[in-house]
Amino acid sequence: MVERKKTVHHYLYSKDKDVLLQRMRKIEGQARGIQRMIEENRYCPDIIQQLTALTHAADEVALLLLQDHIDGCVAEAIRGEHGDPMIRELMGVIRRAMRR
Amino acid sequence: MVERKKTVHHYLYSKDKDVLLQRMRKIEGQARGIQRMIEENRYCPDIIQQLTALTHAADEVALLLLQDHIDGCVAEAIRGEHGDPMIRELMGVIRRAMRR
Amino acid sequence: MVERKKTVHHYLYSKDKDVLLQRMRKIEGQARGIQRMIEENRYCPDIIQQLTALTHAADEVALLLLQDHIDGCVAEAIRGEHGDPMIRELMGVIRRAMRR
Amino acid sequence: MVERKKTVHHYLYSKDKDVLLQRMRKIEGQARGIQRMIEENRYCPDIIQQLTALTHAADEVALLLLQDHIDGCVAEAIRGEHGDPMIRELMGVIRRAMRR
Repeated sequence: MVERKKTVHHYLYSKDKDVLLQRMRKIEGQARGIQRMIEENRYCPDIIQQLTALTHAADEVALLLLQDHIDGCVAEAIRGEHGDPMIRELMGVIRRAMRR
Repeated sequence: MVERKKTVHHYLYSKDKDVLLQRMRKIEGQARGIQRMIEENRYCPDIIQQLTALTHAADEVALLLLQDHIDGCVAEAIRGEHGDPMIRELMGVIRRAMRR
Repeated sequence: MVERKKTVHHYLYSKDKDVLLQRMRKIEGQARGIQRMIEENRYCPDIIQQLTALTHAADEVALLLLQDHIDGCVAEAIRGEHGDPMIRELMGVIRRAMRR
Repeated sequence: MVERKKTVHHYLYSKDKDVLLQRMRKIEGQARGIQRMIEENRYCPDIIQQLTALTHAADEVALLLLQDHIDGCVAEAIRGEHGDPMIRELMGVIRRAMRR
């Protein structure tokens, strides 16, 4: 199962891999920028706004991964007529992402 | 006004500064960890879960800053009888944080 | 297309229809209860807590419908090899639900 | 304490009471509309969209109540130099509202 997953994954988000990595590097930079703001005693609402922007960016990465997951693993499982556990897992992912 | 803000701020979240910086460094580390997961073609739901954890951690930092802001700037403005613009600004911050 | 959708739907969430209707009636009751709290000048945080509960209940209904939608329409479209527009639509639904 | 709260409250959101009640009646209507959609076997994404609209409307009511609460009870407590427990309670309310 794990082996299969790994193989499937190889094809899954590889097309978006550069975009995903680029966005995560930007989020890493945002996290560093917020540290600087805290060190410089910047105004709280301004820092919170940057945290909201970081969170928003992380949500976008999650949504892109989710789409790739549905396009890839979930669709493959459904075509192979063993979609049920995959959809259950997917619902758990969506639920946690919605609730944060 | 800006000058005043800066002075007020100095006292504001200074007590939580170390905690805030420590948490932001952890978030920076989480962002790097997620990059590694993407590079290693890890399973999408596992990456999304780490993004949810990062988002959750960023929300906690925002809530701590929000509390310090209310304890500090907002409370001071209210005591000084000029709380109204501060509360309006605060509501904007909360609204954006809720909507992401 | 619309015709097809209607037919598909018939089978879609029919199994959960009673549960869904029951939950929506409960949400309707919560909305009425909150009106009563406002009329009785109840304490704001208590009313907000009831609004949070209502929102939570609405999210649960949305998640159940989402699961039924993926189990039904989306899975059918994927099996019929025309899953792409369905998945795009699905991602829009998830994105809006996450952002509220 | 409870007695005091009641008195304070009387003045608190009374100015927005009509707006709040009107919005809650609209939300009640939305909950009924969604029941009708379910009964008529309407398309899942369309129902989910209506649930998102309902949730959005409930958030707006919560934000208005939150503002009235901060303008009223919280500001009064801060002026009376016993703001700390009120701010702690407020943070709990905001945290739960953000997490849903």
